[in-house]
Amino acid sequence: MQIITDELARQVIVARPAISHKGDFGRILIIGGSQQYGGAAIMSASAAVYAGAGLVSVASDLSILASLHTSLPEAMFIDYRQPFVQWAPTVQAADVIVIGPGLGLSAFALLLLKQVLQAAQPEQTLLIDGSALTLIAREKLALPDAQLILTPHQMEWARLSGLSIAQQTVANNQAALADYPKATLVLKKHHTEIYHQTQVSQLMIGGPAMATGGSGDTLTGIIAAFCGQFGTNYQTISAAVYTHSAISDQLAQKQYVTLPTQMIQALPQFMAQMAHQ
Amino acid sequence: MQIITDELARQVIVARPAISHKGDFGRILIIGGSQQYGGAAIMSASAAVYAGAGLVSVASDLSILASLHTSLPEAMFIDYRQPFVQWAPTVQAADVIVIGPGLGLSAFALLLLKQVLQAAQPEQTLLIDGSALTLIAREKLALPDAQLILTPHQMEWARLSGLSIAQQTVANNQAALADYPKATLVLKKHHTEIYHQTQVSQLMIGGPAMATGGSGDTLTGIIAAFCGQFGTNYQTISAAVYTHSAISDQLAQKQYVTLPTQMIQALPQFMAQMAHQ
Amino acid sequence: MQIITDELARQVIVARPAISHKGDFGRILIIGGSQQYGGAAIMSASAAVYAGAGLVSVASDLSILASLHTSLPEAMFIDYRQPFVQWAPTVQAADVIVIGPGLGLSAFALLLLKQVLQAAQPEQTLLIDGSALTLIAREKLALPDAQLILTPHQMEWARLSGLSIAQQTVANNQAALADYPKATLVLKKHHTEIYHQTQVSQLMIGGPAMATGGSGDTLTGIIAAFCGQFGTNYQTISAAVYTHSAISDQLAQKQYVTLPTQMIQALPQFMAQMAHQ
Amino acid sequence: MQIITDELARQVIVARPAISHKGDFGRILIIGGSQQYGGAAIMSASAAVYAGAGLVSVASDLSILASLHTSLPEAMFIDYRQPFVQWAPTVQAADVIVIGPGLGLSAFALLLLKQVLQAAQPEQTLLIDGSALTLIAREKLALPDAQLILTPHQMEWARLSGLSIAQQTVANNQAALADYPKATLVLKKHHTEIYHQTQVSQLMIGGPAMATGGSGDTLTGIIAAFCGQFGTNYQTISAAVYTHSAISDQLAQKQYVTLPTQMIQALPQFMAQMAHQ
Repeated sequence: MQIITDELARQVIVARPAISHKGDFGRILIIGGSQQYGGAAIMSASAAVYAGAGLVSVASDLSILASLHTSLPEAMFIDYRQPFVQWAPTVQAADVIVIGPGLGLSAFALLLLKQVLQAAQPEQTLLIDGSALTLIAREKLALPDAQLILTPHQMEWARLSGLSIAQQTVANNQAALADYPKATLVLKKHHTEIYHQTQVSQLMIGGPAMATGGSGDTLTGIIAAFCGQFGTNYQTISAAVYTHSAISDQLAQKQYVTLPTQMIQALPQFMAQMAHQ
Repeated sequence: MQIITDELARQVIVARPAISHKGDFGRILIIGGSQQYGGAAIMSASAAVYAGAGLVSVASDLSILASLHTSLPEAMFIDYRQPFVQWAPTVQAADVIVIGPGLGLSAFALLLLKQVLQAAQPEQTLLIDGSALTLIAREKLALPDAQLILTPHQMEWARLSGLSIAQQTVANNQAALADYPKATLVLKKHHTEIYHQTQVSQLMIGGPAMATGGSGDTLTGIIAAFCGQFGTNYQTISAAVYTHSAISDQLAQKQYVTLPTQMIQALPQFMAQMAHQ
Repeated sequence: MQIITDELARQVIVARPAISHKGDFGRILIIGGSQQYGGAAIMSASAAVYAGAGLVSVASDLSILASLHTSLPEAMFIDYRQPFVQWAPTVQAADVIVIGPGLGLSAFALLLLKQVLQAAQPEQTLLIDGSALTLIAREKLALPDAQLILTPHQMEWARLSGLSIAQQTVANNQAALADYPKATLVLKKHHTEIYHQTQVSQLMIGGPAMATGGSGDTLTGIIAAFCGQFGTNYQTISAAVYTHSAISDQLAQKQYVTLPTQMIQALPQFMAQMAHQ
Repeated sequence: MQIITDELARQVIVARPAISHKGDFGRILIIGGSQQYGGAAIMSASAAVYAGAGLVSVASDLSILASLHTSLPEAMFIDYRQPFVQWAPTVQAADVIVIGPGLGLSAFALLLLKQVLQAAQPEQTLLIDGSALTLIAREKLALPDAQLILTPHQMEWARLSGLSIAQQTVANNQAALADYPKATLVLKKHHTEIYHQTQVSQLMIGGPAMATGGSGDTLTGIIAAFCGQFGTNYQTISAAVYTHSAISDQLAQKQYVTLPTQMIQALPQFMAQMAHQ
């Protein structure tokens, strides 16, 4: 099993071409949030913006509109309770779709998830997180032909794979992932593992300072932004996961906990460190 | 009477185990806020998040939803005007419940308080603050069999105990606390005192720079986070009270007043100082 | 005419007594804001909180509720469209009332102003600013028997006094102020002048970097907080006016403009500098 | 073709006269924003405030009211869905009107644009950006007799001018601009070009770190504030464009992306650097 190092991050986070415009750095659509978990969508979107995504839209509950425009004026808002057909063009135009952060398990969440799974196209990256994974496991939903990224923690992976946490060995995880041949699996745990077909690698950094609500939501935004800028592939996803933990480790030298909003603020500087070397 | 020192804070605020996840650091539920006093619930929840609580939910008035998701996307929101049965699972799942900050004295506040007192379980920590204490005194409400923490200032303690401020001697306070044998009393005053059964200790730090609205709300969040992470006991509560004042003293070297939002921001660094030594 | 120096500010901004609580530092009520000018009330209240006021309430339009609780959780909110009788207790309990910032000139604003003028008590400090001054001039409203502070800019003073800007000489201003014998006049202009009965003094600091929307609103909050903490008198008001401009001058060494939100943030440190010397 | 240097910025950004008030630094009206793109209007207004504009109003959708008063209490709000006649006085009183940021392409946006184009007066500066340019091109709207500033990116200019991006040579752009003889054209691209009648100049700074959503909205606010303070002319507009990119370049030494909210915060210090030399 390969170890993910900062070398990889430095290879992925390349200096931007001088002649470029925001369209070159990815159109990201975050679908998530709800009255109860509105902050999750905001953290995911904030991470995407601060990690360099060109254009970020958030499809969410109307109750988070004011919070989004206040916290992150750089992002655009879509009311996800509109008829899907009205905002389907935004779904189709996205390079990367994130579904799940703060979405919850309501009937509406399930309906929305089904519509998005149906709409996703082969060339699009679709990152599925949190409650969306739980819904997929519970409802046995088929995954679309898209560039899939799954970001479960161990319990969510247990629901998806049928493997108890004790059973989640590398071999078993690889076998279970065969059901999703196009997917990359980011299995969040102490020393997160990343799987894609026969590839497996592991993160040896990241500490307990990041064990706080919203940490996973933040990761989804970083992965989305990286895929939007550097192309969706195993290296890009691994570098995003590395970046998330490396920032926490830097902050944790002086902080007992490293909160998502702090990690998000640190993204532009961390990425400059990686790119300039 | 024992003096609470930074030694105690260093003993309580231990380095986190490397293998851990947010569930290990406490599920906190803050019940408070109202149209008039919405900020109180936000400050309590913010303090809990920045003091390291794993998962923080706020049950409050809908009017604070946008402010919460903007100021503290890390927290979850529950509309406390829903029928109690609908969010009782969140109450039951909480390791630490805080009731009171900004709750007010309305008929609804009283109803809610009664429901929470009834729902609290012996293994749960229940911190009662502010107007909730006033309601308990006025309505002579019985306290539940839970790990109780009471955080009155002197006037609120007078209402609860029947002791005028002049009568609030250590002996009298201990005698009055006998009515609440499972409770720890944090009596907020110049040189705050902490009582539990026969134990009494006193804080000799903290100054007038923290005499500003919201200071007490902030304290509730710190105590809740500490109990969620380090276990509810006399040491933990004392260390939380110490932390609150020590941060103010640090900031007061350069500030005439130390505002709650500033103290909250300083929590992760202060706790790292305590833990690394 | 006396010059206001930092010596005065150092005399007024004294170290706080060790044994004190938030009630000792003033109950401030800001009445202002409207859908169009909501930020004015928030800036006034923020200045009051950061300048050390013990307890700050804002009576305003419901449309600013979320912004207030987000920007300044330390403050309390009152919906000023409630029947006045319902929140009259808050008006009566205030040590210092500020009316005007962002209030506008609507019929409702006039009604509210009349109610507040009627409710003000001799021992209360009543600071009248902005559109409230214009309404008083236009409607020829009588001022109450209270500790009055008027903070017009030159055009507003022209409306109140009948003196054109060219006519606003010290002698004429003193004569005009005789109509308001209990009032202190803060005449805002390049080198602001402060009048009370036979006293006149002038500010020689402050520069064009503070010529930006909201600067006057911020001043009202500083004056209110100072009166709440140090007692309402000519010295206190002068020290507040000095503080406002001195902070701008400090920031203007590195900034082309000094925005209200930046000046507000700088208050606790500036006041510590004054108090520690 | 002339190159825009920091020399020009230093000539334009002059020290403020000691005796001055906010009215001397321009009344700016930003017309834009919508539920989906509310942040755009906030970023434009924030840039205007931080770049020194005296008074900034935002006419927008009610859904951004709370975000505006939270993020930028210095600005005033107007509900642009009111009958136009009700807020026409604000339009008439503005020195500089910005229309477009986040306005969108709805029927309402078109109606509003037509009303504003009709209301604009010869002595007013009218900056037209984003979707307002697209609407003008699509609906072949006539431009008013005002001091016009057009800020299209290359695709928007293609729609306006009929020139494909490949055809956008200096000569062709000059020829196309002859249709708008009073207009200054800021053609946003790698090495932005500025045209006015026979003048052409080019920016050689600015890099890919600013290729992120909201960058153009921020530019509109800086240009508006500069015109409000320094007078609308070719030099002022060029200095504003220079300032926008120079700030990004400064931040990009340590950041992979330079976000609009960060660039806005940096304006007062950058302008002080220019003015003090």
